[in-house]
Amino acid sequence: MDKIGIEQAIRRLADRRVDGMHHQDFLLTWEKSMEELAAVFDTAEILRAMRGLDLSPRLFDSGLAISIFRDNSTRTRFSFAAAANLLGLTVQDLDEEKSQIAHGETVRETANMVSFMAEAVGIRDDIFLGQGNTYMREVAASLQDGYQQGVLPTRPTVVNLQCDLDHPTQTMADALHLINHFGGLDKLRGKKIAMTWAYSPSYGKPLSVAQGVIGLMTRLGMDVVLGHPEGYNVLPEVESMAGKQAAASGGSFQVVNSMAEAFADADIVYPKSWAPFAVMQERTELLTNNDTAGLKELEKRCLENNKRFVDWECTEELMRKTRNGDALYMHCLPADISGVSCKQGEVQASVFERHRINTYKEAGYKPYVVAAMILLARLKHPADALQGILKRSRTRRVA
Amino acid sequence: MDKIGIEQAIRRLADRRVDGMHHQDFLLTWEKSMEELAAVFDTAEILRAMRGLDLSPRLFDSGLAISIFRDNSTRTRFSFAAAANLLGLTVQDLDEEKSQIAHGETVRETANMVSFMAEAVGIRDDIFLGQGNTYMREVAASLQDGYQQGVLPTRPTVVNLQCDLDHPTQTMADALHLINHFGGLDKLRGKKIAMTWAYSPSYGKPLSVAQGVIGLMTRLGMDVVLGHPEGYNVLPEVESMAGKQAAASGGSFQVVNSMAEAFADADIVYPKSWAPFAVMQERTELLTNNDTAGLKELEKRCLENNKRFVDWECTEELMRKTRNGDALYMHCLPADISGVSCKQGEVQASVFERHRINTYKEAGYKPYVVAAMILLARLKHPADALQGILKRSRTRRVA
Amino acid sequence: MDKIGIEQAIRRLADRRVDGMHHQDFLLTWEKSMEELAAVFDTAEILRAMRGLDLSPRLFDSGLAISIFRDNSTRTRFSFAAAANLLGLTVQDLDEEKSQIAHGETVRETANMVSFMAEAVGIRDDIFLGQGNTYMREVAASLQDGYQQGVLPTRPTVVNLQCDLDHPTQTMADALHLINHFGGLDKLRGKKIAMTWAYSPSYGKPLSVAQGVIGLMTRLGMDVVLGHPEGYNVLPEVESMAGKQAAASGGSFQVVNSMAEAFADADIVYPKSWAPFAVMQERTELLTNNDTAGLKELEKRCLENNKRFVDWECTEELMRKTRNGDALYMHCLPADISGVSCKQGEVQASVFERHRINTYKEAGYKPYVVAAMILLARLKHPADALQGILKRSRTRRVA
Repeated sequence: MDKIGIEQAIRRLADRRVDGMHHQDFLLTWEKSMEELAAVFDTAEILRAMRGLDLSPRLFDSGLAISIFRDNSTRTRFSFAAAANLLGLTVQDLDEEKSQIAHGETVRETANMVSFMAEAVGIRDDIFLGQGNTYMREVAASLQDGYQQGVLPTRPTVVNLQCDLDHPTQTMADALHLINHFGGLDKLRGKKIAMTWAYSPSYGKPLSVAQGVIGLMTRLGMDVVLGHPEGYNVLPEVESMAGKQAAASGGSFQVVNSMAEAFADADIVYPKSWAPFAVMQERTELLTNNDTAGLKELEKRCLENNKRFVDWECTEELMRKTRNGDALYMHCLPADISGVSCKQGEVQASVFERHRINTYKEAGYKPYVVAAMILLARLKHPADALQGILKRSRTRRVA
Repeated sequence: MDKIGIEQAIRRLADRRVDGMHHQDFLLTWEKSMEELAAVFDTAEILRAMRGLDLSPRLFDSGLAISIFRDNSTRTRFSFAAAANLLGLTVQDLDEEKSQIAHGETVRETANMVSFMAEAVGIRDDIFLGQGNTYMREVAASLQDGYQQGVLPTRPTVVNLQCDLDHPTQTMADALHLINHFGGLDKLRGKKIAMTWAYSPSYGKPLSVAQGVIGLMTRLGMDVVLGHPEGYNVLPEVESMAGKQAAASGGSFQVVNSMAEAFADADIVYPKSWAPFAVMQERTELLTNNDTAGLKELEKRCLENNKRFVDWECTEELMRKTRNGDALYMHCLPADISGVSCKQGEVQASVFERHRINTYKEAGYKPYVVAAMILLARLKHPADALQGILKRSRTRRVA
Repeated sequence: MDKIGIEQAIRRLADRRVDGMHHQDFLLTWEKSMEELAAVFDTAEILRAMRGLDLSPRLFDSGLAISIFRDNSTRTRFSFAAAANLLGLTVQDLDEEKSQIAHGETVRETANMVSFMAEAVGIRDDIFLGQGNTYMREVAASLQDGYQQGVLPTRPTVVNLQCDLDHPTQTMADALHLINHFGGLDKLRGKKIAMTWAYSPSYGKPLSVAQGVIGLMTRLGMDVVLGHPEGYNVLPEVESMAGKQAAASGGSFQVVNSMAEAFADADIVYPKSWAPFAVMQERTELLTNNDTAGLKELEKRCLENNKRFVDWECTEELMRKTRNGDALYMHCLPADISGVSCKQGEVQASVFERHRINTYKEAGYKPYVVAAMILLARLKHPADALQGILKRSRTRRVA
């Protein structure tokens, strides 16, 4: 995108109804309007294009972006840091082991204590079903309360860096990748995407990517197929919502129990392991009760059951069933690659290798998506601000 | 504070004798003159007001602020990061587990090795009685030596983020909170503040808040009452100093063994648990000797003894004894709230809830207090610099 | 160096052939031409002198510097952070315990995932012989691949923060220290430097400092003597290369098994413990196989063998054998100081104390050396950029 392209994108953004994003959070894509989602896409692309023109999109001379990771992360941790840095914010990580949280600080108190100079708070909390997204809302409510009562000078934005329900930064990056790959948001209409389960030697991977993908793509007029072995269901509420969204967007949504059926004539495939929500429910209880024996038994049982479906692997044979035998392979990474990262995995090595760079590019949208989510929540008039950034002489390289 | 208010505050600051702060440290409030303390209050308020005018008080285009935390922390860690960020410094944490310190680096060496580009070094070291403040002085002396010998290009400022003796960033924020609450430093004269012990299910909390509060408030002409059960004494030297300071400032200081007596007609109450200095002395020996059995026994003994004083709880009943039954409740947080963070604690839930936002606002002064301490030690002519900041067009939001 | 001196240094730099450094890495000093090494010295001195003129050498308004420490570090971690900060980059640490790397991410993938907005990647990997430098090259190749395939917007520079072969940031700082101490690179010709083993109560210190020193100083026309007890050899390939380099530069290189012989008439002594490469090979195997028993046995054996050479201590007596009894003592720190950090160590306390400040100054060059390495790899025309920095009005102190 050149300068003229950026200006066009800014004008497009200016027409979008986004005032509902100001001083709000990004917790679930399905809580945002299509306009708001499109605004994130526009903004992310504008920021990405500005890099090409050596423009610095800095919003702040100082300010913090708080990160709270209640689960491991490489990509998202770095995406959040990159996004914050782009906008002029410094990341301060809340390391719950180094903090006083064990000594009785409430969520409400902690949220305020770390946010006096925060513009954004990024949270990953995806291990306990029913708790992650809830925790994020508790933090958001605490910040809202602090702001309204004059404790905080601004209302920081909470960004969901993966919870038990959704993984918005990932799925929005996925969508932006598809938009660029197929040449436009409208070009996604009628495309078939197979979001399928795949075998993995580990168990207990979060549901949030699968749920997030069907929760977003069904709004884009796509033909979304969720494929998994019987019993490997995602949350019923999300499945049901996906169906309604598909109907409303002019796309379609179905659940099939055959990988081949899901892959048939698919334009896009996204084979990725997850644990059934029923297993996640059981695991959450055992984790809460610190039932180590129970957890070991659950793991054993799940791994045994998974083994019944080792053939749920994204092979060359299955890829041949896709549209022109040439569907776009997607993965949030890291993938379990057969013979590379494990003996038997989610994807055949040659398939992954052919699409490796695609998956890296898919991931590369994340920093811009996170930055866009933050920007749209900090600025009342984002299009004006971006126009100003385009006009001002602030370059990224200053020597 | 508007622009005119800021200018008035800057003129007030310009008249204060603060050259003794340049290239010095902030280790104990009682080592600073009243002028210097007042300068910190003025500067903190100026920085806070500048935020309201969207001004960036950045002092540096680059530079580091080193943090050394030898004990857990949430608030102060974030306050230090926020303060550094405000002034344009990047925090680099010395994680003694990731470092070579176990391999024989001396304090003198480490202090210099991490400070080549440092403007400030923030240290928390409060677990071992007799060692924390001593360590900070050793670091400061090492930096002074390094600077004088041409190893360091400047003399970084050491800021005490809590030691075994004092907790200056906390008590100075507490005082600034009182100044704002009652409408001026002079309004604090003659106000009664009850700094009392309170029951907590944990033992071994540092003495530094209690000592810090009586060490500071007795200089402001206040009627300071230190209340605690018999045997829960703070360091005799600090008690004695508090008495002398009170006499000199026209206030008063007394120690009482009744919570009700302390609370009677108090304008401000600050009920907070601590371990007697005699226990801290014992604990320090046991910790130094790695005497796990001894530590367990000491803990058991202390918890047993604490239980004799469960009634030292800040209840509605006790609050009714205060001035107009409406004293300002203070706490450095996190508080042990009965029925919320523990069964039986320092404060009744309804009392805490009524003052919860007050305690958050109390905490909110900390980043500005830390920033003020650093600023006054880095700039030879702070008032001039702040006037320059007011005049220049550097905003906090740059788009 | 004043402004005129800086301009002279920039003109000198302008004449150096450094285009081979652009978008390249700094992995081993012996892979760089003399021109390139001299460019690092010039640039480091220019950056250092700019500090004296309160100039900010910021290159970037935003951008990350990734740090990957696979071994403990104090100095280099802070040097990397200081260097990044100087240039306008924010450090983001890849903590392999907090990441997904255990879950099967490949090096190639991780390298790209953390580098979307990186300008530099600093890596320390020195525990496993044969693996550290190899890992760095794998990361560099991954970044090259990512850049070429359009995944990364630029080709980040990998900087070796110590590997199993070399420790470039240390030895280049050492050389710059010598250049300043003796008054010029040409003044080092014909100077004798004794890089010797010394007794230490620990075993297993990396070979990279000894190898790095002989690998660099033999290119400067110096008389380099590597002294160690029989059996404490460094890698044969590095020894052989040192000999060839010495011949080519008009210096000399020899290996002696007597500390006194090494110290005789030396201008510079650098006594520092290391484990023989044969031991490092054995240790690498045991570590790879998780052979805890084997490692304990190896340690026992090595400590026993070391004890045979407790007299390999840098004493006053040995220092009297040096040129004018007054050689410059060097150490990368921390040193094992007899009677201070250990009972019996590498150096007598009085010798170390006399040269303590020298060793601090030696270390003080590191941030500028790292910054220089990064700058020369990011800018196609470094001399022009530095001239621009000199001309522009960007100060380090902005208030």
